[in-house]
Amino acid sequence: MLLSKLFIPILKNNPSEAKIKSHQLMLRVGMIKQSSAGIYSWLPLGFKVMKKIEEIVRQEQNKIGAQEILMPTIQSSEIWKESGRYEDYGEEMLRIKDRQNRDMLYGPTNEEQVTEIFRSSLKSYKSLPQLLYHIQWKFRDEIRPRFGVMRGREFYMKDAYSFDISDEEAFYSYNKFFLSYLRTFKRLSLTAIPMAADTGPIGGNLSHEFIILADTGESKIFTDKRIFDLNSNDTELEKNSLRQMRKKYEKYYSVTDEKFNKEEFEKAVSEENRLITKGIEVGHIFYFGDKYSKAMNASVDLPGGKKDFVKMGSYGIGVSRLVGAIIEAKYDDKNEIMKWPLSVAPYDIALVPMINKNDTAALDKANNINKELIKNNIDALIDDTEENFSSKIKKMNLIGAPYQVIIGKKSDGDLLEFKETGKQTQNISLKKIVEIIKKQKNSN
Amino acid sequence: MLLSKLFIPILKNNPSEAKIKSHQLMLRVGMIKQSSAGIYSWLPLGFKVMKKIEEIVRQEQNKIGAQEILMPTIQSSEIWKESGRYEDYGEEMLRIKDRQNRDMLYGPTNEEQVTEIFRSSLKSYKSLPQLLYHIQWKFRDEIRPRFGVMRGREFYMKDAYSFDISDEEAFYSYNKFFLSYLRTFKRLSLTAIPMAADTGPIGGNLSHEFIILADTGESKIFTDKRIFDLNSNDTELEKNSLRQMRKKYEKYYSVTDEKFNKEEFEKAVSEENRLITKGIEVGHIFYFGDKYSKAMNASVDLPGGKKDFVKMGSYGIGVSRLVGAIIEAKYDDKNEIMKWPLSVAPYDIALVPMINKNDTAALDKANNINKELIKNNIDALIDDTEENFSSKIKKMNLIGAPYQVIIGKKSDGDLLEFKETGKQTQNISLKKIVEIIKKQKNSN
Repeated sequence: MLLSKLFIPILKNNPSEAKIKSHQLMLRVGMIKQSSAGIYSWLPLGFKVMKKIEEIVRQEQNKIGAQEILMPTIQSSEIWKESGRYEDYGEEMLRIKDRQNRDMLYGPTNEEQVTEIFRSSLKSYKSLPQLLYHIQWKFRDEIRPRFGVMRGREFYMKDAYSFDISDEEAFYSYNKFFLSYLRTFKRLSLTAIPMAADTGPIGGNLSHEFIILADTGESKIFTDKRIFDLNSNDTELEKNSLRQMRKKYEKYYSVTDEKFNKEEFEKAVSEENRLITKGIEVGHIFYFGDKYSKAMNASVDLPGGKKDFVKMGSYGIGVSRLVGAIIEAKYDDKNEIMKWPLSVAPYDIALVPMINKNDTAALDKANNINKELIKNNIDALIDDTEENFSSKIKKMNLIGAPYQVIIGKKSDGDLLEFKETGKQTQNISLKKIVEIIKKQKNSN
Repeated sequence: MLLSKLFIPILKNNPSEAKIKSHQLMLRVGMIKQSSAGIYSWLPLGFKVMKKIEEIVRQEQNKIGAQEILMPTIQSSEIWKESGRYEDYGEEMLRIKDRQNRDMLYGPTNEEQVTEIFRSSLKSYKSLPQLLYHIQWKFRDEIRPRFGVMRGREFYMKDAYSFDISDEEAFYSYNKFFLSYLRTFKRLSLTAIPMAADTGPIGGNLSHEFIILADTGESKIFTDKRIFDLNSNDTELEKNSLRQMRKKYEKYYSVTDEKFNKEEFEKAVSEENRLITKGIEVGHIFYFGDKYSKAMNASVDLPGGKKDFVKMGSYGIGVSRLVGAIIEAKYDDKNEIMKWPLSVAPYDIALVPMINKNDTAALDKANNINKELIKNNIDALIDDTEENFSSKIKKMNLIGAPYQVIIGKKSDGDLLEFKETGKQTQNISLKKIVEIIKKQKNSN
């Protein structure tokens, strides 16, 4: 892609209305544009990143056997009256009257809607377990939307729902999602720590938030440092292995502030291992048993002829929020250098030819390099503008392709000036560059 | 995928509330489930088809150089007041007050929103042309939503917008979309005819509807039969070639009823070539010049130093509606046989083993065949239930994978009972089956 053709309205300076670095960068480099308070349009650069995140989230849901559906954004109030949450939800719910004067709403979450789909579709324990998910826009009418896509009003979320015959089977489903979340965040190159959390308006008594560390985070967390050394690499998608994995994580004290108890913390964690810091919630999972199935009469026939309410959990990942969260984790705002993880980068590599009027030699060379990259499925952004070199590099450092190649007038021979964005230049061949990027892609 | 694991609530009979065959089939085979009037959830089978259609639409937009963005569903009323359409749009617009009592709305279309993005992003003719598109949910509060996803209230659409410096350049953009629409519908295995159409509330004076023939269509059309013999195969993405292509189509009289003039029709088309019938609109393109750019002050600097309003067009394809439209075109409801085009089929092939209690030989064989299919990227649905054979076939004929393999107890040796859904059985090897399907896939 040629930079001159890309719809990418770049600002010279940080916009004053943005208070945190993800919001600053996203506006500055034209990833998003505000439409109204807490509501954004996604321009090509931001859209590409969000779609790549969405696809990783989707793949990891499919791997645990969840099936994708798509529920609408506008819901009837009827099902929310059944569950009892229509009044409870308060002003964050965007309430709407349609032309027939019916009470509708823009879904802030989907427990009611998915329970309604389940109860009218399946009747027997033989159809269980069922794991259903969708990726859809939601709306919460925040009183003070802020921090760009981190706390917007219209936001993009994956949410999943599990349906099981018993608590034991339901914990198995819960643990599958626990594993898929660890895998998802790892592929996004984030260290997300599962922390025991409050269930809030969703309900239930078992819940984990997945939190990444960030100074600008809104969640205060209390944790045993050693939890950062854990991983789920050896875990299999099997009941016992999953149970062991969760136990391994739960061995270390790790909670958000609603769950914090000073005495317990100090008893469980020796002083040198205590970490009190801030983080960003990127995922949240809940088990709430029959809270909705009972209220909405979603039951299945059991083997012996009796009926029972189905046991449910719900599992959310903030897809649009993750775009901001990754920037919070990766953007060096002092030096104005962003390096996206290759798995979600808007472009794999930036080609920066030095172009003077009437001398297109470097640009021609860039175009030739690009032909070879395209053959290898490597997506390059070529800066074909006539700006001066330092402002070109500055811009590419903000756009954040993880690799850069500088093409000077004198560049000839086989060696190219190649670097990881923000690191030292090395002179290597195009063949070697292709190898490095392909290897990195295959590892994800 | 095993049928017993798939979330697919199949009904024994056609639901009485559905009046047209696409609505009947989609409810019957659990592709969708109504959430409220004119609003549907997409269950796994329907979701897969819609996603495949979406991806074809996206690829064909990218091929003409359009860039993907994503505008939000909820818009501020301000921009609609600027364009003058806030009052005009009437009750079909879903109007909303947020908690701050601001007037918002659920976007029924996006001319205003995209014009606002353009005017605040680009200022120079050098950035033109720009082709932007998005694929997003829209809402039109129809007084009588009906026919399932064919005339719903919440629906999924691709819409694109072009920005050019002059009428001549704008017609070039218009013709690019004209070509991309012909290509898109061809890949969906639909014959969609471009017809001169009225511009309605979008405005402007040049417009084509792309219409497929169907008895249940809501559009009445008057056309010269010979237009069905045309194709765009030799057209290149170049100004002159595109102009010739549009001329070739416009040579034949072909209009919707708002544009119909009996005298003109009879003069232009000899009796044996006249066709008066019904069709379904699956795409609609508009050129409206500076209608929105003037009202909203979206101008660019011209070469000489003057400014001018940018010239715009808009281009829609109903993605969710296409699921229904393809069924209307392909479903043989007399014999209850659906055969999806392979490019959008929920599964490429159905494997139907005959299973008796305590005899899993045929199922084992199906699972082995499936392993080979997976290696070749062929997506199979295996009916692992113990229903009787004729009801299995009946169900598979409704689900509509374009190919079927019947696996009896006696099936052994290398030859399999293979058929195109609804056609005659032939005995051929698995290797040959794989070849047939791969060849068909590659041709799209």
